[in-house]
Amino acid sequence: MSILDSVDWGKLERDAVALRRDIHKHPEGAWTEFRTSAIIAERLEKLGWKLSVGLDNIDVKSVMGRPDDAVIDSHIERAKAQGGNPAWIDRMGKYTGVVADMDTGRPGPTVALRFDIDCVDVAEASEASHRPAKEGFASVNSCLTHACGHDAHTAIGLCVAEALAKLEPSLKGKVRLIFQPGEEGCRGAYAMVQKGVVDEADYFLALHIGGKVPSGVLGLKSLGYLGTAKFDAEFKGRSAHAAAAPQEGRNALLAAASATIALHGIAPHRDGPTRVNVGVFNAGTGRNVIPDHALIKAETRGETKEIADYVYARAMEILKGAAIMYGTELSVSKMGEGTTADSDDALAEKIGEAVRRLGIFKEVRDTAAGTGSEDATWMMRRVQERGGQAVYMALGSDIAAPHHNGSFDIDESAMINGVKAFAAAVAALLS
Amino acid sequence: MSILDSVDWGKLERDAVALRRDIHKHPEGAWTEFRTSAIIAERLEKLGWKLSVGLDNIDVKSVMGRPDDAVIDSHIERAKAQGGNPAWIDRMGKYTGVVADMDTGRPGPTVALRFDIDCVDVAEASEASHRPAKEGFASVNSCLTHACGHDAHTAIGLCVAEALAKLEPSLKGKVRLIFQPGEEGCRGAYAMVQKGVVDEADYFLALHIGGKVPSGVLGLKSLGYLGTAKFDAEFKGRSAHAAAAPQEGRNALLAAASATIALHGIAPHRDGPTRVNVGVFNAGTGRNVIPDHALIKAETRGETKEIADYVYARAMEILKGAAIMYGTELSVSKMGEGTTADSDDALAEKIGEAVRRLGIFKEVRDTAAGTGSEDATWMMRRVQERGGQAVYMALGSDIAAPHHNGSFDIDESAMINGVKAFAAAVAALLS
Amino acid sequence: MSILDSVDWGKLERDAVALRRDIHKHPEGAWTEFRTSAIIAERLEKLGWKLSVGLDNIDVKSVMGRPDDAVIDSHIERAKAQGGNPAWIDRMGKYTGVVADMDTGRPGPTVALRFDIDCVDVAEASEASHRPAKEGFASVNSCLTHACGHDAHTAIGLCVAEALAKLEPSLKGKVRLIFQPGEEGCRGAYAMVQKGVVDEADYFLALHIGGKVPSGVLGLKSLGYLGTAKFDAEFKGRSAHAAAAPQEGRNALLAAASATIALHGIAPHRDGPTRVNVGVFNAGTGRNVIPDHALIKAETRGETKEIADYVYARAMEILKGAAIMYGTELSVSKMGEGTTADSDDALAEKIGEAVRRLGIFKEVRDTAAGTGSEDATWMMRRVQERGGQAVYMALGSDIAAPHHNGSFDIDESAMINGVKAFAAAVAALLS
Amino acid sequence: MSILDSVDWGKLERDAVALRRDIHKHPEGAWTEFRTSAIIAERLEKLGWKLSVGLDNIDVKSVMGRPDDAVIDSHIERAKAQGGNPAWIDRMGKYTGVVADMDTGRPGPTVALRFDIDCVDVAEASEASHRPAKEGFASVNSCLTHACGHDAHTAIGLCVAEALAKLEPSLKGKVRLIFQPGEEGCRGAYAMVQKGVVDEADYFLALHIGGKVPSGVLGLKSLGYLGTAKFDAEFKGRSAHAAAAPQEGRNALLAAASATIALHGIAPHRDGPTRVNVGVFNAGTGRNVIPDHALIKAETRGETKEIADYVYARAMEILKGAAIMYGTELSVSKMGEGTTADSDDALAEKIGEAVRRLGIFKEVRDTAAGTGSEDATWMMRRVQERGGQAVYMALGSDIAAPHHNGSFDIDESAMINGVKAFAAAVAALLS
Repeated sequence: MSILDSVDWGKLERDAVALRRDIHKHPEGAWTEFRTSAIIAERLEKLGWKLSVGLDNIDVKSVMGRPDDAVIDSHIERAKAQGGNPAWIDRMGKYTGVVADMDTGRPGPTVALRFDIDCVDVAEASEASHRPAKEGFASVNSCLTHACGHDAHTAIGLCVAEALAKLEPSLKGKVRLIFQPGEEGCRGAYAMVQKGVVDEADYFLALHIGGKVPSGVLGLKSLGYLGTAKFDAEFKGRSAHAAAAPQEGRNALLAAASATIALHGIAPHRDGPTRVNVGVFNAGTGRNVIPDHALIKAETRGETKEIADYVYARAMEILKGAAIMYGTELSVSKMGEGTTADSDDALAEKIGEAVRRLGIFKEVRDTAAGTGSEDATWMMRRVQERGGQAVYMALGSDIAAPHHNGSFDIDESAMINGVKAFAAAVAALLS
Repeated sequence: MSILDSVDWGKLERDAVALRRDIHKHPEGAWTEFRTSAIIAERLEKLGWKLSVGLDNIDVKSVMGRPDDAVIDSHIERAKAQGGNPAWIDRMGKYTGVVADMDTGRPGPTVALRFDIDCVDVAEASEASHRPAKEGFASVNSCLTHACGHDAHTAIGLCVAEALAKLEPSLKGKVRLIFQPGEEGCRGAYAMVQKGVVDEADYFLALHIGGKVPSGVLGLKSLGYLGTAKFDAEFKGRSAHAAAAPQEGRNALLAAASATIALHGIAPHRDGPTRVNVGVFNAGTGRNVIPDHALIKAETRGETKEIADYVYARAMEILKGAAIMYGTELSVSKMGEGTTADSDDALAEKIGEAVRRLGIFKEVRDTAAGTGSEDATWMMRRVQERGGQAVYMALGSDIAAPHHNGSFDIDESAMINGVKAFAAAVAALLS
Repeated sequence: MSILDSVDWGKLERDAVALRRDIHKHPEGAWTEFRTSAIIAERLEKLGWKLSVGLDNIDVKSVMGRPDDAVIDSHIERAKAQGGNPAWIDRMGKYTGVVADMDTGRPGPTVALRFDIDCVDVAEASEASHRPAKEGFASVNSCLTHACGHDAHTAIGLCVAEALAKLEPSLKGKVRLIFQPGEEGCRGAYAMVQKGVVDEADYFLALHIGGKVPSGVLGLKSLGYLGTAKFDAEFKGRSAHAAAAPQEGRNALLAAASATIALHGIAPHRDGPTRVNVGVFNAGTGRNVIPDHALIKAETRGETKEIADYVYARAMEILKGAAIMYGTELSVSKMGEGTTADSDDALAEKIGEAVRRLGIFKEVRDTAAGTGSEDATWMMRRVQERGGQAVYMALGSDIAAPHHNGSFDIDESAMINGVKAFAAAVAALLS
Repeated sequence: MSILDSVDWGKLERDAVALRRDIHKHPEGAWTEFRTSAIIAERLEKLGWKLSVGLDNIDVKSVMGRPDDAVIDSHIERAKAQGGNPAWIDRMGKYTGVVADMDTGRPGPTVALRFDIDCVDVAEASEASHRPAKEGFASVNSCLTHACGHDAHTAIGLCVAEALAKLEPSLKGKVRLIFQPGEEGCRGAYAMVQKGVVDEADYFLALHIGGKVPSGVLGLKSLGYLGTAKFDAEFKGRSAHAAAAPQEGRNALLAAASATIALHGIAPHRDGPTRVNVGVFNAGTGRNVIPDHALIKAETRGETKEIADYVYARAMEILKGAAIMYGTELSVSKMGEGTTADSDDALAEKIGEAVRRLGIFKEVRDTAAGTGSEDATWMMRRVQERGGQAVYMALGSDIAAPHHNGSFDIDESAMINGVKAFAAAVAALLS
């Protein structure tokens, strides 16, 4: 008999679904997860976790891609209007996220678990074939959808919190639960790391639901997240009447166009894949006016930190040169950044043992391919640099459509397995 | 003693200012001049002119750059809310502009006068140093301003209508007053010409206020309007996740960027100036998505029809080629077009004589430089092709800021001189 | 005791060095290997192989990247002047390469071995530290060097011919030796394949010396050759005086520049690496003349045939579109092409056994990374499509400098191991 | 009776044709006019002019677009082989051009006349319809032709020298004849001006034969030469194997391509025509190597000095920015430069009077359109800045083909009129 038997898993399975659906219905984008954070705080407080919220966990100088204050304020209003506890929201100081601590008082290592809580900027599908629409928990916030499963991550985290609260008497050491804002666009993790949020962790665990891993399967080490930088580049020139005084203009649109084409031509790298994309380009105001302003939203990626750094450095050269070519001024704002990190074999092995013992997975794979980028890598790197170990798992779930698609939906029954896997891992590490 | 002495010029001078200020306060953009057209119609009906409005004067197939119906409807609502006579507005059939006819019943030639009535898409200055702001007739319509003097043109036209009604017993032949929508962007004249609005004219007269000509001066032949084409080019590609499946995208943004840079590199022409501008560029939706859509708003110009045609033809080659380069689909919509035309010397001489006799101008110049483009050239060309004569004059007025600038303002005292010049010219041609 | 013991390996080891040095000293580029082919023919004839040379083995329509006739003629002259047997050269019909056949008369499979014989277009190092310079066998042909080891391949092939002639009584089936022209730039193999040169082969073997594999090691399956296309694109426009009549020009230089930039921006592929390079760009004749001609020399690559095809198809779209953009005419000449192919595991295993039994390699690896592209892949594909098996091996040799560098040199002692490996493999397959 | 009657014009008319044909047959390009300079020096010495040659008249630091020493040396050899007086050539110090002075000893102003002596880099037509070919005086120097009439200018200058030597007793003041090298590409005048060659001139005269002015006509003021800069831009990057290590390259070809496209997109200028051309582009060595070197030969022009400066400044920004974009190094060499200048009305009037009195021209026009650029403008500007007056005339001549075309030929009978015009002008100014 395992210590895990003391938990009422049936209740948690029902809770996970209810929580996920509530969060799914009220999605909040990066840095605006006020309602979500308030729900987390309220629930964890009741379970006895020691909390710090919002600004307390954020290094403001390191924040990337956060909307301006007016937008933040309007999202705070919405969060309160949609039932977010105003007392908790006011305590957050206009920043989101929650960190919850449990100290058993017994000597032992510290385990940190990380759950990301933000949604994606896409409109949710409204067809009857889309379960959230059919069953009434589709997004009520326009152009926002939990289309990447962070609603499930949050629900899993809340259930893990309840399970661990129950298990506490059997544990030693400390547990920290990190509910991170702004994973999308790799915006939130870095500011938490810079605040020292994972500095005490001996072990760090995180997971992602879905991807290419089907229901019933757990991947112990999710591989291949690309290092990435997200940035906005703004060119400022000088407007002029395009027919009457063309020589007086400094054409920001042309600078941006020239930069864009060159960015897409950054040479590939011998050692692994690279990616560059200028996804958004907006410039100019009138047909007969030489544009004095252009904005491009871009990202660079590389398989390793070295490759990612190479692509980013080349991108900066290109932007700088293009600005000079057209006599314009350039400003680049980093809107997000993800690094690369490898899961530790030793820790993966320990967790693998604990998880296999649960007998709830059809298959526990050693590795599983991740896709795109993931900013938990900042946390993994920091923990590893300080001598700790980290693992990023892939929690299998059949999905109704690709991630970031408006018809995305998960297999809700996978969530409880994730809760159990975390609980078992912590129990293995702290008992 | 002249027949012109029968007119009460003092009243008309006051009327011109009052009318101009009312129109200035309620500016309406191209194809949405419903209130302005209603005011014109109401006033001219009282003066006994025979009217046709809106759709009756427009060849729908030839319309360029008109907003879509939803926008038109909302502007109709605004026009009525701002006092536009609903009966007249409803008669317009969703198109703007007024044509007014006087037939003396006595054999003689037909003179057509053209007045343009639309405003510019810029926000009006609000500083106290800006007279419309100080004296309470600044634009109440956001981002719309009569910053090109068409308010004055309209007021002049209305006063000319009153003067000619008074002079009618002394005249022979016919007079047609054309209040044209959508001169900005060269959008309106062509559709009127194609409807035949100037087909009966033996003489055609138009003028522009301001420019580089100071108060007290009249230029008989305004020269140098560039032939121009305004067009929107849309590239449709295929979106794809920029990191996960870049090979599946067809990048509309890159097609548009490549086209834009090449458009600005169209070779100049031996025979005269050319201009190209891509003034607006919007593409893409998300940083990590290969953009499947890009829109550029562009214009080409040339000093003569031949040069303008050369530039436009090269632009079309470039757009077509760029679309192919990136595997995208192109659609080009012509949003406006102006041609070139020369004033007739013989007619200019006749008018010069009549105007000099008035003794109201410090100086009557033979020629004055026009700037940019002007779609009255379509009317001039048509009249000349059918054996008539045309003149485009420059009515001097000191201006507070360049045309199309939010601080633009005219010297209102210049207007009555414009009214007298038109009246004298018509009297000379029809008596 | 092995049948291989009947060969005088000591003599062959000395022969290999002497042959390699003679060929090294007289390098000949793609499609001009007349002296080299004559030497091969002369020697093989003496050994009793049945020969076909030059045009007999080439499908002329499939030839890529061959110099024009005047260049061919001058190389024929040089070949004769440098000791190439004129009778053999005249029999070649202006095409190079040799195919040699042995038919044991005893029923059995057919084994084809391929050796490439051309050099690289680089100047050889002249420093004393460069052994060919020091020992007097450096290239006497300017800007031509055996800097990719094909001199060694040829020498190995000649020694294999001698060994197999000796072994013939112990063998069954048939052996074909293919001395292929123009591997550099992937120019020669395809035309031989199209002539049917490998159509009868049940087994196909080839190898490359050097690469990343050190002396003493044999890699059984050399992996990762990229599919590639080499092409020249020529843009023809119309020249004009750049100041006096710019509108009359059609700028071929700008078309090529625009194409070049876009080629380098072809989106990467999810499934594996891609490469694009425009390595040479020549356009225009005079500073003040709009260029009517531009030539670019380019190549595309992809890890698999599918990826390579994707990149090439995109490149063709870009070239076509760029030509249209600038009103120019495009002609594309394919100058070379390599495909991809995998070695067959079953054959590799058989050869591995035979080679390991020799006991001459420190290490026999299953796989070894190839680099760049290799047109033996055409032969492998054809053999496999017809039901045969193919293997491409990596023969380890320490190298003095990277391939294609003027200081490249091999470890000559590796050659005899290559000879033995081939002989052992053939013996294993045909006895 | 005029003092001009003392000259034997019949002899000079024959001399002009003979001299022009000799020079035409032996054309020499910019900075290599050694034979031409020697012939000038020999002849003028005999006529009693005081001479300075080559280096004595050149400010070496200001020289633009001169070939390197090896090329100069080979042209010196050719000049001697083609009959150039070796003594004179050796005195030139490897620089070309001749300045000849006459001092009457009587007080009076100084008149400077300028004749340009270089040819164009085009091949001469060989058809029988081309008179120089038919009559045996076509160019014997490959790819060099007097296709711009400087052969005639030189012949005129030599005959003017003889006429003025005859007239000397009737004159006061001083005369300077300037035989300038390197007008093509605007390479020679500036270095002479910087040496002070025109610093003492009160009056400066020059002319061009042909253009758009027919035989029998003289234009007193040739207008509209564009200010121009000729420059070579070299980009240095880093080469790398395009497939094996693309990330290590710094692509000079792409930098040059990007710069080229942007150069052609420099915005036009309100105040007058501009021109930009990249006429030559050479980059790269091998198809599969990232190019580490690119060279473009370009020119910019503008109607006034201000416009020309604007275009050039923008070009330099573009080159600098493009170099940075691709991580390459840029070096720009100015290869030529022409400015703009206006002829003085007062001087033109005086000359007009003198020339009309000759009665040899069907028509003496006030102005005539020049085309392209002309570096005598440097001399005109210097003279005018120091208080003198300058005139640049157009000497009418029917031409067989446009300037710079291999079939260009002049009407030789026009030359003697040019000689007389110069002589009459000098006589009018100095008597």
